[in-house]
Amino acid sequence: MNNDHDPAGASHWHLGPIIDALRTSRESTHNIRHQGRVRELPSRAVLQQVIEGVSAALFPTHYGRPDLNDESIDYFVGDTLNVALDRLVGQVRRALRFNPGLEDAGELELAEQARSITRAFAGSLPDIRALLVSDVQAALAGDPAASSVAEIMLCYPGTIAVLYHRLAHCLHRLGTPFLARLAADIAHTLTGIDIHPGARIGASFFIDHGTGVVIGETAIIGQRVRLYQAVTLGARRFPTDDNGALLKGAPRHPIVEDDVVIYAGATVLGRITVGAGSTIGGNVWLTQSVAPGSNVTQAQMRNV
Amino acid sequence: MNNDHDPAGASHWHLGPIIDALRTSRESTHNIRHQGRVRELPSRAVLQQVIEGVSAALFPTHYGRPDLNDESIDYFVGDTLNVALDRLVGQVRRALRFNPGLEDAGELELAEQARSITRAFAGSLPDIRALLVSDVQAALAGDPAASSVAEIMLCYPGTIAVLYHRLAHCLHRLGTPFLARLAADIAHTLTGIDIHPGARIGASFFIDHGTGVVIGETAIIGQRVRLYQAVTLGARRFPTDDNGALLKGAPRHPIVEDDVVIYAGATVLGRITVGAGSTIGGNVWLTQSVAPGSNVTQAQMRNV
Amino acid sequence: MNNDHDPAGASHWHLGPIIDALRTSRESTHNIRHQGRVRELPSRAVLQQVIEGVSAALFPTHYGRPDLNDESIDYFVGDTLNVALDRLVGQVRRALRFNPGLEDAGELELAEQARSITRAFAGSLPDIRALLVSDVQAALAGDPAASSVAEIMLCYPGTIAVLYHRLAHCLHRLGTPFLARLAADIAHTLTGIDIHPGARIGASFFIDHGTGVVIGETAIIGQRVRLYQAVTLGARRFPTDDNGALLKGAPRHPIVEDDVVIYAGATVLGRITVGAGSTIGGNVWLTQSVAPGSNVTQAQMRNV
Amino acid sequence: MNNDHDPAGASHWHLGPIIDALRTSRESTHNIRHQGRVRELPSRAVLQQVIEGVSAALFPTHYGRPDLNDESIDYFVGDTLNVALDRLVGQVRRALRFNPGLEDAGELELAEQARSITRAFAGSLPDIRALLVSDVQAALAGDPAASSVAEIMLCYPGTIAVLYHRLAHCLHRLGTPFLARLAADIAHTLTGIDIHPGARIGASFFIDHGTGVVIGETAIIGQRVRLYQAVTLGARRFPTDDNGALLKGAPRHPIVEDDVVIYAGATVLGRITVGAGSTIGGNVWLTQSVAPGSNVTQAQMRNV
Amino acid sequence: MNNDHDPAGASHWHLGPIIDALRTSRESTHNIRHQGRVRELPSRAVLQQVIEGVSAALFPTHYGRPDLNDESIDYFVGDTLNVALDRLVGQVRRALRFNPGLEDAGELELAEQARSITRAFAGSLPDIRALLVSDVQAALAGDPAASSVAEIMLCYPGTIAVLYHRLAHCLHRLGTPFLARLAADIAHTLTGIDIHPGARIGASFFIDHGTGVVIGETAIIGQRVRLYQAVTLGARRFPTDDNGALLKGAPRHPIVEDDVVIYAGATVLGRITVGAGSTIGGNVWLTQSVAPGSNVTQAQMRNV
Amino acid sequence: MNNDHDPAGASHWHLGPIIDALRTSRESTHNIRHQGRVRELPSRAVLQQVIEGVSAALFPTHYGRPDLNDESIDYFVGDTLNVALDRLVGQVRRALRFNPGLEDAGELELAEQARSITRAFAGSLPDIRALLVSDVQAALAGDPAASSVAEIMLCYPGTIAVLYHRLAHCLHRLGTPFLARLAADIAHTLTGIDIHPGARIGASFFIDHGTGVVIGETAIIGQRVRLYQAVTLGARRFPTDDNGALLKGAPRHPIVEDDVVIYAGATVLGRITVGAGSTIGGNVWLTQSVAPGSNVTQAQMRNV
Repeated sequence: MNNDHDPAGASHWHLGPIIDALRTSRESTHNIRHQGRVRELPSRAVLQQVIEGVSAALFPTHYGRPDLNDESIDYFVGDTLNVALDRLVGQVRRALRFNPGLEDAGELELAEQARSITRAFAGSLPDIRALLVSDVQAALAGDPAASSVAEIMLCYPGTIAVLYHRLAHCLHRLGTPFLARLAADIAHTLTGIDIHPGARIGASFFIDHGTGVVIGETAIIGQRVRLYQAVTLGARRFPTDDNGALLKGAPRHPIVEDDVVIYAGATVLGRITVGAGSTIGGNVWLTQSVAPGSNVTQAQMRNV
Repeated sequence: MNNDHDPAGASHWHLGPIIDALRTSRESTHNIRHQGRVRELPSRAVLQQVIEGVSAALFPTHYGRPDLNDESIDYFVGDTLNVALDRLVGQVRRALRFNPGLEDAGELELAEQARSITRAFAGSLPDIRALLVSDVQAALAGDPAASSVAEIMLCYPGTIAVLYHRLAHCLHRLGTPFLARLAADIAHTLTGIDIHPGARIGASFFIDHGTGVVIGETAIIGQRVRLYQAVTLGARRFPTDDNGALLKGAPRHPIVEDDVVIYAGATVLGRITVGAGSTIGGNVWLTQSVAPGSNVTQAQMRNV
Repeated sequence: MNNDHDPAGASHWHLGPIIDALRTSRESTHNIRHQGRVRELPSRAVLQQVIEGVSAALFPTHYGRPDLNDESIDYFVGDTLNVALDRLVGQVRRALRFNPGLEDAGELELAEQARSITRAFAGSLPDIRALLVSDVQAALAGDPAASSVAEIMLCYPGTIAVLYHRLAHCLHRLGTPFLARLAADIAHTLTGIDIHPGARIGASFFIDHGTGVVIGETAIIGQRVRLYQAVTLGARRFPTDDNGALLKGAPRHPIVEDDVVIYAGATVLGRITVGAGSTIGGNVWLTQSVAPGSNVTQAQMRNV
Repeated sequence: MNNDHDPAGASHWHLGPIIDALRTSRESTHNIRHQGRVRELPSRAVLQQVIEGVSAALFPTHYGRPDLNDESIDYFVGDTLNVALDRLVGQVRRALRFNPGLEDAGELELAEQARSITRAFAGSLPDIRALLVSDVQAALAGDPAASSVAEIMLCYPGTIAVLYHRLAHCLHRLGTPFLARLAADIAHTLTGIDIHPGARIGASFFIDHGTGVVIGETAIIGQRVRLYQAVTLGARRFPTDDNGALLKGAPRHPIVEDDVVIYAGATVLGRITVGAGSTIGGNVWLTQSVAPGSNVTQAQMRNV
Repeated sequence: MNNDHDPAGASHWHLGPIIDALRTSRESTHNIRHQGRVRELPSRAVLQQVIEGVSAALFPTHYGRPDLNDESIDYFVGDTLNVALDRLVGQVRRALRFNPGLEDAGELELAEQARSITRAFAGSLPDIRALLVSDVQAALAGDPAASSVAEIMLCYPGTIAVLYHRLAHCLHRLGTPFLARLAADIAHTLTGIDIHPGARIGASFFIDHGTGVVIGETAIIGQRVRLYQAVTLGARRFPTDDNGALLKGAPRHPIVEDDVVIYAGATVLGRITVGAGSTIGGNVWLTQSVAPGSNVTQAQMRNV
Repeated sequence: MNNDHDPAGASHWHLGPIIDALRTSRESTHNIRHQGRVRELPSRAVLQQVIEGVSAALFPTHYGRPDLNDESIDYFVGDTLNVALDRLVGQVRRALRFNPGLEDAGELELAEQARSITRAFAGSLPDIRALLVSDVQAALAGDPAASSVAEIMLCYPGTIAVLYHRLAHCLHRLGTPFLARLAADIAHTLTGIDIHPGARIGASFFIDHGTGVVIGETAIIGQRVRLYQAVTLGARRFPTDDNGALLKGAPRHPIVEDDVVIYAGATVLGRITVGAGSTIGGNVWLTQSVAPGSNVTQAQMRNV
């Protein structure tokens, strides 16, 4: 009942000149946008459905339907997965068109490559599930406020962010970086946690609270690492080529070794190494490597 | 029109072995997940509907329908509340199954307890409304950019976060901690503000901007407290028992007394006390109690 | 299948006294809320539809339908824009009622003013599009991880936040501050980036990652400025009048000149000026103006 | 997953000339359509929602929610009815514009008249409910296959058709014939039973099976009448004025007195009277009045 | 954009007295409705979902998803069937409460009986599918306008009506007559064909066009029978007991033997037998048995 | 709140054997169904969207949006039509696979043919609109109960049936008989009127009430013909070839010349001609040609 509006025909918006001006504006940016080619974009909504479907296939009672039993569960998994993969293959095909070298590939070649990637993605799911189980167990062990696996799976944005990342990283690794980025951004919207799909992250990873966490494209994270909200694993400066243009993809983010804890708001920048077992305190600003077992904290505050 | 896909029957995903591997993976984690029992999980979507319904009953023209008048408003409140409570009772029942000691309770006992909790929750709503009105007034008084109550209620994520918290805290206090956590995480998703439902918060509470705020399980906050974005009221270290296992629920978060203001990005950790009337500056890292009336700011920056 | 509930008629919630108490509570706060008048609130959901429609009209293949061609695109733009404007005019009318001086305006006067504002908003769209194109190009140039315009438009929350801001700022400038704030808060929910619609922002603006960014009402930002996540451009203290009441709208946020970069977590407060070409380091707390070309970084950390 | 389509940009439909031709076609019929005026049409979908809302208010557990109890039912009725009437008043206002003499009425006058009609409609609902209860009881008494009131209310298209008719007839009587016709046609679509809203029908009316029943505008039906499928109460010839133009609204359909039964497929035409207590056999073609207590059957068949 | 309505608060509908009158009306009919008991009604919408699910399980590519292949089809069938049966069992439980003798049955007993009926229904599906295949083949053989099985399954209302009937008849036979009737009425709404679920119908049954067909509760139809639109197999008179009350369930509809064809509009009434291989012409009114091989046509027309 | 169900995991439906039996049943009918080929079926839901879109493009204010004005209407028509045609082309492609001779056609050939048919369909729309305008004017002239064009367009099932027919006939004529049949069956469901898309119907055609009307595949109807409910224009006997198999498509339905009126329930069968200007009375059974100007009525009834 909220959509009141003008009486019929009362308002003219002078659409004609606006539409003309928008067309002119589009035309002047067209070359920049598409190099003169029309490439159909992947759909954020469909990709989110795909990931929700895959999540439901991985953890049927938590992310699928809570009333499945041993008789019905495999049918659910099989059908849900099949629908998700049927949808995914079309999105992969669209995204491939944005890969360097495939702008002009034939439709059939692209479709075949999309099928092959989708099949490889499907085949990776059992291993991804094993990693995710290790992540959930790490959360249960690491947070005194957590009381059950169910709570970890339903109430922790970090769980969702890592789930999306492990799937996005797989898509990235299989050669669809654009689709992987889109998946990562969906997770960012859902959780406030921004992990580039290129980042490599070991087992038993736990992000608590999580809002504002940023993990860059070339970061490498070991096993049993724990991060808190607003931690940045970022780049310090951007490598450029001889002409000053950004070098895309060059290593520029930290390496965080096994068993490191980084507290809220810490900023770790550049291709430095945080040695195994170190603890980085809250709000710390770190731009140099630290040895294994280090304990870094911020300068003192003072009362005025 | 976005869902293009493979021609019918073209793609086989080799589902069989994947489904087998996922089943094996599920079976190996089953004991961890459910202690061998099947417990139906509460539904995030239904709980969100419940809270939206309760919000509409509390503030009918702001969160319900904007065209209610004095003739129609009580019917709306009554029906909306009844629907919300009918839905809530089922979710409470599911959540109770996750309470220690109730894993094996009888269905009838659980249903009776769920009804009793739901009734107590309903009975608390007028008091909760009074608190929320004090919160909105605090926002209007405390933010020079705020121009009306309507703006506070519709455009401030802090308002939504506090609304969810006061309802979640009530559920927590009444003995459904899992459901309370789920409500808190919905608010976290909506607002970027993460308040554990165990936290006790006095009247006239205001969070401005709010993204990245974290308030821990055992935090205690007085009246007329104001927080800005990215403030953490967290734990410094986690108490453990003699075996090194985390002590769940032990007091470990700050006590913030009346009339304190904490600026953006400040991190306050551990069971310390921030004395009444104190001001904590932006980005401050504070791990020791400060006396009433203190004014804490960060160390100086320097130009390089 | 998730909505189980009590058997029919089993549960009474003692609704009567609760509804009475809520009515009493509403009545005691009524004067505060509406000054005794009923003002229909704008709808968040409808406004979001309007902005999505306008976005689709501005960038038809990215935010509208990916399969448009040169024959069909102008029909799509025209129809989509017309629907959005027909919806917008009603929301403007509602919002105008919250403008000081219009609480008692006649319905016809309000409707006429709403049409005039909507028409001016529509006429501004080509210029807004040009600004947004400059923003996208700045992102492509400024982030080594970005590989295409499509990725910038679909996968960067900063793009969405700036898109919403440029539309909200236009509504703000045209005299509907409440509606502008609502648009800004929708963007905040979607992106974790909180830009007050009053802020004035030059061309080629880029926010990377973005979660936790706050830009205040009276901030002024030049051209080619780049911000990272959790940057605050806030107020240091709030000007008050002789009676100690907040002076709403007084200049109290920073001026950031052209070509400034501000890294993650930096907090810049008060009506200070960050000189052109300066760099502000991560987590810096800055409350005094800095000259053009400055390079400000945080105090050192120390290992313990 | 069904919406496959052409690759982006592949198909041009030569829209331009088609759109031009359709515009030309519209312009040539414009005078006929609207007498040069733009009149906003009532919405079939909204009217159906209105009737469903009113039905739910009349029979809350059958057409509303099956789990209402004595505590919650009046809130449901009040809120459901209020929503339905708020929607109805706008549709009445639109429909009034199609009444002779109101084509040029002022907006305020029309709105006032719409409110007055809606209020009268609301005030008639208790009497309409009493009639409908008599209809349901007649069905239960008259059909050996019926086993409960619930079955009559949920499984008999005749029940729905009579419910819609009694509401549509009320709208017709109150002076909104166009809206009444629209309601009647919705019922026709739902049930295959076509009752003109002008028809006057007494209590305890029962239509069994019902598909193909047609009851004309000026028909008058007494109490305790029973019809079977495919019965027509129609016009034999159409009265014309001196110029041969149809006289709209003149009495031309049958009068069916109390306690008449008309079997499947019978066709009763013209302003004739079927006397009280008569039985008209299946497939009978009747164009002359019959005395009370008559028993009319079809001519014999013969085997070939 | 169609839902315009009154300005906020403008309209009062005098709801109070209407709601009071409706309550009084409900209370006076309460005994009739429910014998003082509250029985939750089955849901038409849920039952329709159940039947659509079962249909999809029976004919996956026609009524489910057209892109299933031999790898995915059994997962689809299993999951779709499981969801449908999980929904069905709750509806059966509600419906059982309307069976004579079960008004006061215990909840657990009812649930157990519902499960048992649902399981038997599921077990009957392969046999039902075989019957439906025979029906489709009869249609293909019997209609010169039919060109493929796909056309029979997607474009013939008779196919849908018989599909619903065979499922409804199974529910009827298993002891849930109310639910069966509800299923039959859904089919009636969808197709204009009204088959009582009690009717017994042999294999290879075909109804062409179908609108207006009525088949009564105790009708018995042999194999390879073909009906056209508006055929009635009805009751002539209703048996009553000594008190004149209708005898519910007594045989009163025709027996139609194998290989009979009945043309459009024919009305066959009473417990008569239409002998094997007979043809009944269009619009015939038949109330006496005819021998096998008969050919019955209507009396001649005459030109006036 | 209606979907109650069994507690989690309580019910096993013995799915395994049922799924096996259904698979066996599918396999035994596979040859019949598809001649061993997988052909993706057109979608009823999508086709209905297409027709609704085309209807909105033809009559924008009646079937599209009631608030269009001369500035906005062509954008609406263009965009709506483009969307509809983009959807239609995919459905045409699927349907073509069911044409004799195209079962094995290449995908590219099929796509090209689908585009060509869709383009021809689009080009026919202005002529179809002209026919439909003549039909509406015939209704207004022919029914004394009709008071406006708007009423004819919104409240007469005959209008919808003829609209669907004229579009379906165009698809039929252009070589997609299966899709045309599907469109016709959608209209049948919506209106109870069953017109085979092969039937040829002249201008100014009007069906009043309409439920139960059947018009066969090879019927030919002149201009200014009027039909009432339950009229059948059917086949008397089906031509067979030398082997007794049905001859599909042979002329077997009536020719109805200009200015004929056929009243309710009349059945006209076989390749006979109803001469121009004739009137056929209600319930008449006609199997022989009648001369122009004839007036045919049923035999007399008798009172018993």
